[in-house]
Amino acid sequence: MLESIGYGAAASHEPLDMMRFKRREPGADDVQIDILYCGVCHSDLHTARNEWGNTVYPVVPGHEIVGRVTRVGAHVSRSKQGDLVGVGCMVDSCQRCASCSEGLEQYCENGFVGTYNGEEMHVGGMTFGGYASNIVVNEKFVLRIPDNLDPAAAAPLLCAGITTFSPLRHWKVGKGHKVGIVGLGGLGHMGIKIAHAMGAHVVLFTTSKGKKEDALRLGADEAVLSTDRSEMAAHENSLDFILNTVAAPHNLDAFMVLLKRDRTMTLVGAPASPHPSPQVFNLILKRRQLAGSLIGGIAETQEMLDFCGEHGIVSDIEMIPIQKINDAFERMLKSDVKYRFVIDMASLAKERSE
Amino acid sequence: MLESIGYGAAASHEPLDMMRFKRREPGADDVQIDILYCGVCHSDLHTARNEWGNTVYPVVPGHEIVGRVTRVGAHVSRSKQGDLVGVGCMVDSCQRCASCSEGLEQYCENGFVGTYNGEEMHVGGMTFGGYASNIVVNEKFVLRIPDNLDPAAAAPLLCAGITTFSPLRHWKVGKGHKVGIVGLGGLGHMGIKIAHAMGAHVVLFTTSKGKKEDALRLGADEAVLSTDRSEMAAHENSLDFILNTVAAPHNLDAFMVLLKRDRTMTLVGAPASPHPSPQVFNLILKRRQLAGSLIGGIAETQEMLDFCGEHGIVSDIEMIPIQKINDAFERMLKSDVKYRFVIDMASLAKERSE
Repeated sequence: MLESIGYGAAASHEPLDMMRFKRREPGADDVQIDILYCGVCHSDLHTARNEWGNTVYPVVPGHEIVGRVTRVGAHVSRSKQGDLVGVGCMVDSCQRCASCSEGLEQYCENGFVGTYNGEEMHVGGMTFGGYASNIVVNEKFVLRIPDNLDPAAAAPLLCAGITTFSPLRHWKVGKGHKVGIVGLGGLGHMGIKIAHAMGAHVVLFTTSKGKKEDALRLGADEAVLSTDRSEMAAHENSLDFILNTVAAPHNLDAFMVLLKRDRTMTLVGAPASPHPSPQVFNLILKRRQLAGSLIGGIAETQEMLDFCGEHGIVSDIEMIPIQKINDAFERMLKSDVKYRFVIDMASLAKERSE
Repeated sequence: MLESIGYGAAASHEPLDMMRFKRREPGADDVQIDILYCGVCHSDLHTARNEWGNTVYPVVPGHEIVGRVTRVGAHVSRSKQGDLVGVGCMVDSCQRCASCSEGLEQYCENGFVGTYNGEEMHVGGMTFGGYASNIVVNEKFVLRIPDNLDPAAAAPLLCAGITTFSPLRHWKVGKGHKVGIVGLGGLGHMGIKIAHAMGAHVVLFTTSKGKKEDALRLGADEAVLSTDRSEMAAHENSLDFILNTVAAPHNLDAFMVLLKRDRTMTLVGAPASPHPSPQVFNLILKRRQLAGSLIGGIAETQEMLDFCGEHGIVSDIEMIPIQKINDAFERMLKSDVKYRFVIDMASLAKERSE
């Protein structure tokens, strides 16, 4: 077995702390990666604290991973030693069902294997994520990071990037479209950048007056205070698509009425308690649709990375040493980050020597 | 002005009673129709009792109208005296907006003119519906009734028929599809017949064990008791489309989970109080969609009537004299009708002579 060190939680009420654990040795189809950077996603916190009720401890979070290939199995053809690569939210799937066959591993009928807190299918137990020195992943789930992107700032593309890119692509956002992005956080700021690069006219909706300027800087054409009735009314029946990134329960109707006939609002955040029930009349009277979307498939994640490479898109990040992860969790809860924490895994070195 | 008699409500708490009123004389583009039959829709009751809060009294309900043309204006080319014709939920629209231009008058950006309780655009006041001796309608909103259909049983096609046909067409239901119809009432029974004729495998979901047999007789391939967990579980992730006709607030999640990935449940009933809020996870984890749909456009209504003519589809009806309309409203509230009341307007004759 392969020795690994990282930061994880031993129980729901415990802070993350240094832990040593083992991973499988790379098999014939596997790639071993030394992790350089790992983004901090809200799911990491939910899972560390068992807020979704399904955490198996100990858990090592992290699914926005960028690193360097150090070893490859005998059958590996897509990666070689020294490559700069990424790993996102999935490290395996059944590879046989209809969804996997269509390249939609995120909707695997048998359930994909999460990068952490998933069932390790080779040696048993659970998978451990990217708040760690290294990781071993089937080559099919290893992504190429474009050379021209800052590797640290590219890490959040692996979850925040694909979670916003995939629905924008699926609902065919492009030139001539007026697209709403609801919420300016880790997901929302990527949504602005990507929708803008796709050629859309981007309108950012926020409850924080202070974020309007930032939205414009990030590429939004307009920024709207969603608590202001007259600002909102000006956009009624005008949007071609809305990407709603807000996980906190909120009034969906305020946004549904901004859609044109036959258009869709897609939710990518799942609230812990339900949103107020949306009004059926707002769906019926304009044949509007409310949808959801989950990350993206592996081929689409590569397409997203290449797209970001072409357009020079990365996340706005604040780099932290791993020893600051618990502070980062608290700050994330207060939305006190612009717009994603990324752990510099070099900071693990001093723990390694202890 | 044209004399008309019919049954209407003078106030929200009053039963429907005979009333005399006036309509505009047919203009150059208008068709005058002697009404033979009029279906009884739940909207008639909602409006008569001001349950949507927008009723202007007196109101004469009725928007499932079949009748005979008695007079046409100078510019009318589509109808001639003696034609058997229908009028549905709309008698006019702006004819200029994007939706009207696309033949989607039901989504007219300026609001279509309802067959009753709508703004009469020629002589002012409100429109009066089909619980009446005659009606005057712009020829564009007059439909041809296929010769081979029983005219009384065809009347409910004008609302119940198009309300179910339009979403089944829009979401491309056809051969090889497994389609769920939720609720077996006026809308649901039309949904079964039309989806079956479109070639789909139809599954009817009902809370009434007693309706299962009827569903199969009407053309459903399967009938499922939606309160039975194991019957429901057998259909998880298997449906290509769900048409939900139930207007009473109910748990939408029980049906959302029956949809395959990327599929849609469309609501055609609007509850007076909201449904319990649907779980966002059921949307996200399979990229499912919740939508709404409103009646259908005029061209599509004609397409529906022609389709029903080809397939010999009409509504299952119980004919009543107009003097029984208040009883019929009460029975409709108890779902005590299989599956649509239709008023035989010949019953108005004795009132006429009084």
